[in-house]
Amino acid sequence: MSGVFSMNPLHLVAVTGGTHGNEMSGVTLVKHWLKDSTELARETFTAVPLLANPEATEKCVRYYERDLNRCFTRDILNSTESQDEPYEVKRAREINREFGPRGSVNAYDVILDLHNTTSNMGVCLIVSEAHRHLEMHACHYIQTHLPNFDPQIFLYKEPGSELYDLASVSKAGIGFELGPQPQGVVRGDMLQKMKTLVKVTLDFINHWNQGMEFPAFEVDVYQRVGHVQFPLSPDGEVSAVVHPSLQDRDFFLLHPGDPAFLSLDDQIIPYTGEQPVYPVFINEAAYYEKNIAFILAKKMQVSVPALSSTSQKRTL
Amino acid sequence: MSGVFSMNPLHLVAVTGGTHGNEMSGVTLVKHWLKDSTELARETFTAVPLLANPEATEKCVRYYERDLNRCFTRDILNSTESQDEPYEVKRAREINREFGPRGSVNAYDVILDLHNTTSNMGVCLIVSEAHRHLEMHACHYIQTHLPNFDPQIFLYKEPGSELYDLASVSKAGIGFELGPQPQGVVRGDMLQKMKTLVKVTLDFINHWNQGMEFPAFEVDVYQRVGHVQFPLSPDGEVSAVVHPSLQDRDFFLLHPGDPAFLSLDDQIIPYTGEQPVYPVFINEAAYYEKNIAFILAKKMQVSVPALSSTSQKRTL
Repeated sequence: MSGVFSMNPLHLVAVTGGTHGNEMSGVTLVKHWLKDSTELARETFTAVPLLANPEATEKCVRYYERDLNRCFTRDILNSTESQDEPYEVKRAREINREFGPRGSVNAYDVILDLHNTTSNMGVCLIVSEAHRHLEMHACHYIQTHLPNFDPQIFLYKEPGSELYDLASVSKAGIGFELGPQPQGVVRGDMLQKMKTLVKVTLDFINHWNQGMEFPAFEVDVYQRVGHVQFPLSPDGEVSAVVHPSLQDRDFFLLHPGDPAFLSLDDQIIPYTGEQPVYPVFINEAAYYEKNIAFILAKKMQVSVPALSSTSQKRTL
Repeated sequence: MSGVFSMNPLHLVAVTGGTHGNEMSGVTLVKHWLKDSTELARETFTAVPLLANPEATEKCVRYYERDLNRCFTRDILNSTESQDEPYEVKRAREINREFGPRGSVNAYDVILDLHNTTSNMGVCLIVSEAHRHLEMHACHYIQTHLPNFDPQIFLYKEPGSELYDLASVSKAGIGFELGPQPQGVVRGDMLQKMKTLVKVTLDFINHWNQGMEFPAFEVDVYQRVGHVQFPLSPDGEVSAVVHPSLQDRDFFLLHPGDPAFLSLDDQIIPYTGEQPVYPVFINEAAYYEKNIAFILAKKMQVSVPALSSTSQKRTL
C-alpha cells in the first residue's frame, strides 16, 4: 500500500465537485450537499462536501488560470505562496492544508472527486495505481452493486510519473468520471448516476468501518499508457477530426490500421501504433488545448488481496 | 416576401461559422474553406466563407462580450460606433456593412449561418418567418434531398419581435443548427452532416440560378412561442434539472402534467402549461446564463407558393 494509511476506521471523508468548474454533475451535487448534507451521512461518519474550484465554477469554465487537477504536484505543494501565482496553485495548497497534507497521518481518509467528460466514458472509476487496495475494493464494490452502470476502472498514473490530482491529497482517492455530458450542462440521468455512485461508495466505507470483510478478487483495469494527438497542418491548425467510426468507442479495442481520423478533405487517417490499444477520453473537449485526440490504455487483469479493517496491518 | 429581394440570380452567397465561437462544426468548416473554398464553388457563383466572431473563436467561447447573434437589431445596426462598446456590437456593424446593409439592394442574397447545440435537435433548419419563400423552398429542397437527416424547420421569430440574428443581414438567411454536440468539440458525424447540408443548399441556389422551377408545397414547421425557465431556490440557484424523461426529446409533444424537471431532492416537477407544446433546445448549455431550460414551439402546417426565378415578381 503506497499511502500512509490510517488503519481504521475511515472517518474523514470528503466529496469534491467543481474541481473542473464546468463539469456540472459534481458542481450541482456539491452545491446541493452544502445546503443539505443528509445524503452524505452514515452511521459511522458524515462526508464533507467541497466545491473545489469556486472561481472556475462561478465562471463555468474548467479552470480560471491553471488546471487545478494538475496542481497537486510535489513542487507546488511544497513551495511557499508567492504573489502573482495562479489562483489554482494557491487553491491546491489550501486544499492540501485542509484535506491533507498529502502523505501525513492527518490527511483525510478518502476523497471522492466528481468529474464529467464529453467522451463516451460511461461510468469510469479513476484510481492512481493498481496497488491502491482500498480504492480497488471500493471500485469492486461499486462494480458488484451497480452492474447496470457497467463501471470501468482506469489507472491514470503512468509508471514513473508523479501524482498531480486533487484526490491524491487524501490517503485514498477515487475519481468518478461520467460521460458523455457537455461542459456546462447538467443531464438528469448523469446526475442520478453520480448520486448513486457516491451513495454506494459511502455505503462501502460505512461497511468497512463496521468491520465487514472484503475477499480477494481479480479484476480488469485499463492502465493509461500514452495518448494520440490530432494531426496538424503546417500552420498549426487541426487538420482532421476523430473519425466517426472511432467516436464514442471508448474502451473498445483499436487496431493498427483502423480509422483514427478523418481529414477535412475527407481522407481516412489510420491509427499507426504497433499494438492494439484501448482508446479512452476520445474527443474530450478539455484536451483540445493540448491537441490531444484520445488517451491510450492497455487492459490488464490485477489480483487484489482480501481486505478487512482488522487484518489491514497484515494485508496492506 | 418581407425581404428586399434581389430578383435573380443569387450571386452573393456567404457561409458563416463561428458566430458562436465554441460551436465547432461551423468553426472548423469555415476555417477549412478559408484555405480552400473549392467545395463552395458552383457553376453560377462561389460562396464566401466568413469566420463571424474571430475573438470568440480564438478563445473557444460563445462570445467575448455579448452574444453576436443577438446584436443584429435595428438599434445597434443604426447607431454610430462609440468607444467602450462590446466587441460584438462593433463586429455586427462590420458584418452588416460588408454583407448587408440589411434591407438594402446591395445586401448579400443568401447567408447560411452554421450553428451547433448541446440539445438533441438533430438537423434543424432555422428561418425567421414562414413567409420567407426562398428560405422555405431551400428548406424543402433539403428535406427532399436529405430525408435520412430528418430535417425540421424552426421559425425563431415570435410575432411582434424584431430580427436580431446574423443571417438577417442578407436578403435570405438560414441557420443550420446541428446537435447534440458539446461546446468546444468537433464530432466527425456532425461535421459531415453540416458539410452535406451546405453542399445541398448551394446546389439548390445553383439550380435556382439556372432557372429551375420549384412547385408549391405544404410543410410542417415549428413556430417559437415561448420558453420555460429552470426552477430556482430562494437564493437564486437552480434547484432542479431537466427531467431525464424530457432530456433529448426535442420535437416530441409535451403535455401539461408531464415531468419537466427533477428537483435535487428527487421530486418530479410537471410541465404546467395549459396546452401541449413541442419543446426544443432542451437543456442547451448556452441558455443556462438566462436560466432557460427549453424553448416552446407550436407545430403548424404552412403552404408555400411555387417559386421560379422567372416568376418571382408575380409569386412573391
